Amino acid sequence: MNVVTVETMPRPGAGQIPAGVADYFWGEAYERRTLEDTLLAFFRRWGYSDVVTPAFEYAETWIASGSWAEQAELCRFLDRDGSMLALRPDMTIPVARLAGARLHDVATPQRFCYAGNVFRDVESRAGQQREFWQAGVELLGSAAPAADAEVLALTAQALDGVGIASYRLVVGQMLYFDGLLRSLQLTPAQQARLTQAIDRNSQPELDDFLRDVRLPRRQQRALAEVPHLGGSDVDDILRRAERLALNVAMQEAVANLRAICETLAAYDVLDRVTLDLSEIHNLGYYTGITFEVLAPGVGFRIASGGRYDNLVGAFGKAMPAVGVAFGLERVLLAQRAGTAAPAPQPIAPDLVVAAGNRRAAFAFVETARQRGLRVAVEVDGRSGDMLWQAAQAADASHALDWSDAQPVLYSAAGSRPVAGRDDAETADLLLSALTGERSTNDAADARQAVQA
Amino acid sequence: MNVVTVETMPRPGAGQIPAGVADYFWGEAYERRTLEDTLLAFFRRWGYSDVVTPAFEYAETWIASGSWAEQAELCRFLDRDGSMLALRPDMTIPVARLAGARLHDVATPQRFCYAGNVFRDVESRAGQQREFWQAGVELLGSAAPAADAEVLALTAQALDGVGIASYRLVVGQMLYFDGLLRSLQLTPAQQARLTQAIDRNSQPELDDFLRDVRLPRRQQRALAEVPHLGGSDVDDILRRAERLALNVAMQEAVANLRAICETLAAYDVLDRVTLDLSEIHNLGYYTGITFEVLAPGVGFRIASGGRYDNLVGAFGKAMPAVGVAFGLERVLLAQRAGTAAPAPQPIAPDLVVAAGNRRAAFAFVETARQRGLRVAVEVDGRSGDMLWQAAQAADASHALDWSDAQPVLYSAAGSRPVAGRDDAETADLLLSALTGERSTNDAADARQAVQA
Repeated sequence: MNVVTVETMPRPGAGQIPAGVADYFWGEAYERRTLEDTLLAFFRRWGYSDVVTPAFEYAETWIASGSWAEQAELCRFLDRDGSMLALRPDMTIPVARLAGARLHDVATPQRFCYAGNVFRDVESRAGQQREFWQAGVELLGSAAPAADAEVLALTAQALDGVGIASYRLVVGQMLYFDGLLRSLQLTPAQQARLTQAIDRNSQPELDDFLRDVRLPRRQQRALAEVPHLGGSDVDDILRRAERLALNVAMQEAVANLRAICETLAAYDVLDRVTLDLSEIHNLGYYTGITFEVLAPGVGFRIASGGRYDNLVGAFGKAMPAVGVAFGLERVLLAQRAGTAAPAPQPIAPDLVVAAGNRRAAFAFVETARQRGLRVAVEVDGRSGDMLWQAAQAADASHALDWSDAQPVLYSAAGSRPVAGRDDAETADLLLSALTGERSTNDAADARQAVQA
Repeated sequence: MNVVTVETMPRPGAGQIPAGVADYFWGEAYERRTLEDTLLAFFRRWGYSDVVTPAFEYAETWIASGSWAEQAELCRFLDRDGSMLALRPDMTIPVARLAGARLHDVATPQRFCYAGNVFRDVESRAGQQREFWQAGVELLGSAAPAADAEVLALTAQALDGVGIASYRLVVGQMLYFDGLLRSLQLTPAQQARLTQAIDRNSQPELDDFLRDVRLPRRQQRALAEVPHLGGSDVDDILRRAERLALNVAMQEAVANLRAICETLAAYDVLDRVTLDLSEIHNLGYYTGITFEVLAPGVGFRIASGGRYDNLVGAFGKAMPAVGVAFGLERVLLAQRAGTAAPAPQPIAPDLVVAAGNRRAAFAFVETARQRGLRVAVEVDGRSGDMLWQAAQAADASHALDWSDAQPVLYSAAGSRPVAGRDDAETADLLLSALTGERSTNDAADARQAVQA
């Protein structure tokens, strides 16, 4: 990459980080990693395989595909050999690149899932970071409505699974408006004006357009109705859309949506769907359905996706495809709706142990960790009450001072010596005290029972 | 970031990616994510909290700290405002930056763990990627040997936990050679020559040096012995190193190593340790022990770390610290030692289901996934033998055709109809057939028992 001398650059204060990126730590970082893991595990159960693409690639990958809408948002930089690189602004195009260029001989459908950071060079605004995290899936190689339905149902069930309530899947089908546009035979200027009116969802602009541009009655009626082809009464909307259809393209768009909705009903997620045929998404790589997920209390869509049948072919063999990306920060916001963010403090250990250099103490610590307890070893030589105070400051429920031969367990209930007849029995007694269960190692219990 | 016009750049072929970065997919990507998850879960049980720092920061963070040894390897680029950014070449410096600048009021020790990608602008060679993945921990705020021992023991037990056999922890203590250098009172040229001889581990160069530079007998003897102060007989090496010590600095270095080794013995990992007092690590941020982990069959260290007491202070309040980073690709190589890499094919579903638009079929699919099965839904309308052939091609052990009212289960044993008296019983029978266990939903069984 291009090396610029240190002298030419402004010097930020030591310890600062650039605008639009952030540190995540303690509960906040754990929460996000856990969400990634939960979503990936969920995607895999739907038959999706992991994919990890490079954090940077040739900028060409996003430019040449002609599909990346916001080229100014690419974080670009020069490689040593003069080629232009870019930090990935999304995962969909790299997966399409991989499938088109390298996996064209693999049987379809191909299912991929991912979780990772993406980059957009935007001015830092609320909710707009330059680095943010996405998880998602791409289903490649099927043009069937069942594939669209799978991705929509996966989106809904994934959100159910991570505890998001009251979200809506807002589903459009850009081919409907495309078909309408084609039937109108407008001048480019008229088309731009109309698209803008629909895109802005502006009834006055649409009214003005209809007044200024003389259209046949059927066309005029269809156009006037487009802003009203949205809502949750799916059957009604599709019936009306069908009646208004002016050509085969519009009829096929409705038939496609109807087939998708039938499958969504079988998936039992149709009640989550709001149709919106005024969705036109005239930018980007989408070629069929598009959708976004809205959730109460979050001012941005928490997930979005759609069908992109022309993208894979830009890199090799063409394949129809459909996918979804979840914005992880936004899903976390929606999860929290009404509840506070994780406390800004380190995650508390269950137990702090002063082990001295005692093998028995370290062996116990290892066993406790294997049983799933979070155990921090005291490294600064604290013992006794000092140890318990430090443990309490770290929000630990217990401390164990085993720096002397006689181990002492501290808790809110006070301190008490815990000692079996040997180290193994002592470890057993400690585990029972900490986990509230019987130990899996029953040797000591058995011995006690025999001797009783 | 700096935007350069598209016209100025060479055009890579569509679908290519730059040198030194890679796509990972299917088993290979899953394997790495699983290793990350396993290590993070392990670190957390040791009391470490997750941290995620930005993929890029001010290049200053690595330059001003004076600690990043290989500045030419920084992947740098200009921000819009003219400041120089860099993709992170490591995680240790960002964590030190975070702790020094923002967390100086938090009680110590502070424990952080991470997993993520890091970037070095190197010529692409075998095993040298420009983007690679690390997981690791940083233990901040303790100067005690027990902290060094904790990180070393964590390293050993983590590698045990992920199935790496026969690795060695090669541990040095740069303060020993530092103390020796100080006692020799060499000219800068002599010091450079000596350091190079030791760094290259070159006996002839050291012999030449000892011939050319007249040193007092004790100094000469200590220097001649340094290359031999390495091996697994820890007690013997420390005794010899102590006898050769020429000043308090060297004595303290030995005492520090001895204290660490005593604790490592209590952790029961001392048999994994090879001492090497000729390790001098004269580059980078280390100030005390340094270590690397070597494993058979992997030509590179699979993990490395050490103590860095002066780094956090470069960003705010000073804190002693010690840490380790695991190279994930290299740990995976060591895990595989002797066995083949994962097969280059999608991860097989357990079951492929043709569900038509049947609610009962999709409900069964959801239940099966909740039970942990990987279930792919047929989206291209295959049924019957075509479905089973496609399932076999995807390496699935079963296919279920429930596109008609009568579900048929396919496996290597043949095909058979499976139908209970209602959909719930059918789902139960299918789950039993697929998992080989009794269903958790015993309603149907109970009904059968009652009716028998």
